[in-house]
Amino acid sequence: MEIVSENKSYGGRQLVVGHSSHSTSTDMTFSVYLPPQAEKGGKLPVIWFLSGLTCSPMNVTEKGEYRAACAELGLIFVAPDTSPRGDHVPTDPSGGWDFGLGAGFYVDATQDPFDRNYKMWTYVTEELPALVAAEFPVDMERQAITGHSMGGHGALTVALRNRGRFKSVSAFSPIVAPGQVAWGQKALGGYLGEDEAAWRKHDAVALIEDGARVPEILVDVGSDDPFIENQLRPELLEQACADAGIALTLRRQPDYDHSYYFVSTFMADHLRWHAERLA
Amino acid sequence: MEIVSENKSYGGRQLVVGHSSHSTSTDMTFSVYLPPQAEKGGKLPVIWFLSGLTCSPMNVTEKGEYRAACAELGLIFVAPDTSPRGDHVPTDPSGGWDFGLGAGFYVDATQDPFDRNYKMWTYVTEELPALVAAEFPVDMERQAITGHSMGGHGALTVALRNRGRFKSVSAFSPIVAPGQVAWGQKALGGYLGEDEAAWRKHDAVALIEDGARVPEILVDVGSDDPFIENQLRPELLEQACADAGIALTLRRQPDYDHSYYFVSTFMADHLRWHAERLA
Repeated sequence: MEIVSENKSYGGRQLVVGHSSHSTSTDMTFSVYLPPQAEKGGKLPVIWFLSGLTCSPMNVTEKGEYRAACAELGLIFVAPDTSPRGDHVPTDPSGGWDFGLGAGFYVDATQDPFDRNYKMWTYVTEELPALVAAEFPVDMERQAITGHSMGGHGALTVALRNRGRFKSVSAFSPIVAPGQVAWGQKALGGYLGEDEAAWRKHDAVALIEDGARVPEILVDVGSDDPFIENQLRPELLEQACADAGIALTLRRQPDYDHSYYFVSTFMADHLRWHAERLA
Repeated sequence: MEIVSENKSYGGRQLVVGHSSHSTSTDMTFSVYLPPQAEKGGKLPVIWFLSGLTCSPMNVTEKGEYRAACAELGLIFVAPDTSPRGDHVPTDPSGGWDFGLGAGFYVDATQDPFDRNYKMWTYVTEELPALVAAEFPVDMERQAITGHSMGGHGALTVALRNRGRFKSVSAFSPIVAPGQVAWGQKALGGYLGEDEAAWRKHDAVALIEDGARVPEILVDVGSDDPFIENQLRPELLEQACADAGIALTLRRQPDYDHSYYFVSTFMADHLRWHAERLA
């Protein structure tokens, strides 16, 4: 593990960390914010933020506006990358930004040539938590998870398949049913192959239909999000949660879009909501 | 005037605006945040944020974390660019990042070839205020100004030379005496020529020595700022203000650096301090 950068912010420390990943067989980078309470000894609750298409950990680190609330609430905030990186890592042969580099979709690829590096499920659910637990003062009994867009998909599927690991799960503008939308069909097909049965473990709506449960979910999405109708489809999550008895709070925020101008607006709300459940 | 982008954020509207500037004879871009109170009619106080070396308006717009406080306080926040832009605009012949593009130093250049476009003093003190006053609901009787690094220099010199225009002036990590430090000597020499008498009107410490006054100044600077000793030299402002009877609040913030991780930490503090004086 190597500290790439360290900057004091809101009384705590914003780190960017590099390490060699055995899951992805590449170097990986993540960011971690340690609030001022981390200096006092003892362990703190941790929230995982999974990012969206095209993002590195730096997008939320620079534009997410989470440090003020994390410093107030005593929360450690960890942001992983969205894919393996490196010149040797295969990417979208068609040159798209919705598959390959920056678009790992939080799955373990089974399809050649992506199966050599695109092991983001193992990375975010096993390798990175173990590394963070070993290196930082996190209380692994008090974890929460959230994410944006593709990362909202990641947060929901990771929480649904790891019942009890997280005290709370929320999402900003999530892709809720990748098996039913173009972004997800391209990604799941490319990483997992054409057998759609394999996709259901990486589709929040399908997981809920198949019996996965969390007690409650908080979702914010902008009413002017250009992807809401064709890629995000929050109404499908609404229906699945209603059918399954999951307490979903879905807020369609008027006039907001898909950007970090939207995410940052509601970041503190989400962090407070999680902090209540991590207390 | 052309709206380049508009994003809802914290209940208000974050705009990026382009226009053709008669001061610089180039197109120019600035950002303006209109808090939710702007929808109600009536005019709102405005704060000008002048940015530092290498920055465009997007640095503070994306990383400055000002919107939460502006939305709470009902402040309009305007961020101009730091130089003229364009392929035809001359820049540092030595390829440096501390002169030319992104480094206008808020002066009207008199030296060929920079005198054709580098009219940033006129731009930020006359042209842009007139445009903003005409296009947005700003109360020009309630203006404040701040800035970062080179922009802290800009904020201090603009306030000192326009007594009474601003209700308040503050700065983050300002260059306080460009005539005495390498960045400033290169810039003022390049734009204004070798006659150092001309530099004194663009040097906060010299302006105070020569009789310019504001009632009070708030300055934050990081104790670990790598530029504090050789380029910023806050102790020179401290001495000048003490000699002149200007109420300077200079806070050396322990372990903070020169980055937006520092600026964003104290942004809300500065905005509240200004809002009290704009009330």
